[in-house]
Amino acid sequence: MSGWIAIAGLGPGAEDLVTPEVRDALAEATDVIGYFPYVARVPEREGLVKHGSDNRVELDRSRHALDLAAAGHRVVVVSSGDPGVFAMASAVFEALEAGPAAWRDLDIRVLPGITAMLAASARAGAPLGHDFCAINLSDNLKPWALIEKRLRLAAEADFAMAFYNPRSKSRPEGFARALEVLKEVCGDARPVIFARAVSTPEEDLRVVPLPECQPEMADMRTMVLVGSSRTRVITRDGAPIVYTPRSTP
Amino acid sequence: MSGWIAIAGLGPGAEDLVTPEVRDALAEATDVIGYFPYVARVPEREGLVKHGSDNRVELDRSRHALDLAAAGHRVVVVSSGDPGVFAMASAVFEALEAGPAAWRDLDIRVLPGITAMLAASARAGAPLGHDFCAINLSDNLKPWALIEKRLRLAAEADFAMAFYNPRSKSRPEGFARALEVLKEVCGDARPVIFARAVSTPEEDLRVVPLPECQPEMADMRTMVLVGSSRTRVITRDGAPIVYTPRSTP
Repeated sequence: MSGWIAIAGLGPGAEDLVTPEVRDALAEATDVIGYFPYVARVPEREGLVKHGSDNRVELDRSRHALDLAAAGHRVVVVSSGDPGVFAMASAVFEALEAGPAAWRDLDIRVLPGITAMLAASARAGAPLGHDFCAINLSDNLKPWALIEKRLRLAAEADFAMAFYNPRSKSRPEGFARALEVLKEVCGDARPVIFARAVSTPEEDLRVVPLPECQPEMADMRTMVLVGSSRTRVITRDGAPIVYTPRSTP
Repeated sequence: MSGWIAIAGLGPGAEDLVTPEVRDALAEATDVIGYFPYVARVPEREGLVKHGSDNRVELDRSRHALDLAAAGHRVVVVSSGDPGVFAMASAVFEALEAGPAAWRDLDIRVLPGITAMLAASARAGAPLGHDFCAINLSDNLKPWALIEKRLRLAAEADFAMAFYNPRSKSRPEGFARALEVLKEVCGDARPVIFARAVSTPEEDLRVVPLPECQPEMADMRTMVLVGSSRTRVITRDGAPIVYTPRSTP
């Protein structure tokens, strides 16, 4: 049987947010490759080899996956969320472009998943219900000046904003600077959603007016959503509902 | 049994892209409400009433759904893609905010789905693999000037861009103007993806350099993705792969 490679999204965490398409690919795979905690989400099965690896080795992992597929294995590269949003798909294609020409003949598919911002948005209401942008706040792979430029232009465009990787132990200061920029350029009390580990047992959701936001409210498992100037909060018993109206006068 | 309302995303079209969470909600529902073609995607079943309605009656449809849930029905409001991205969730919350106070006590959930831009991105490779924005190109609910402003700022921010509702019979000119703006401000041959009806039997995918793009390449079933200045095309036998690298020097 000839090999293939599927770059699949496992969704934000809950089993019932994994698409049947991804489940079917995992059922046919000989090898699953990815970051340790994502590989751990795939059940053990006879005939399935699990290759977990650490963060920041995405290109090595991609070459390994392409090598295995070229040798006839049926390989699923797993990401959480959607593989095309700040996840493994770009890394695999970077490796493919720089690799042997024969890799271009491989049967290669990307299987979409529920990305974190959509899961977080669903829990909060519909904060991304109008035009929005998604920004990776990590400056591991791009200069901080570019992040800050994008924040300012996104605010000027009045996009709602979704921030991936807002803050980590090794980068505690970036998110603090991002909040300073937003407080300066937005100048209002629009709602900010801190959505941690949505759809897992550790799920936690907070809605905080921008002026009251503190850097410590986010960590690497937190998705941060910032409303546009039009975003509204519906208060009620229990959690408020945050949504951005469809229309702008 | 008390009523509830779930605002659910059916994904882009294929059955195996519907999450188990959405399937379970549909299995428990007494009523399904939505735009005709989306309601038609839900199989008939004894005990399930299907309420299809036309486009542009989203607020009436939302009030109907909230009324039914308040009367004890188990209601699923269906959208294609994700309900929180240019779909029914914002409309339901607009109706809820303006409606009777009792509606705020309803059991109301949003169930995420695979939105069109992620399905299109997966088919093309990983064009949204770095920072990006999503813009609804319809000017039914916002002025054209705001759309054009957002296009210019998004290009300045060097976002990849995803365009929903690029073109319809009643709005043939907007997408032509959007292409003119992009050709002017981007000034290069970055790849544009026209992804029509992804994951359905009518699926069609084209990758076209921006200077060669024509308005007629899109219709209302087309998702348009525009690369950033960093987006790359890998040529090979068969469809090219379009991806945006994770890093910016």
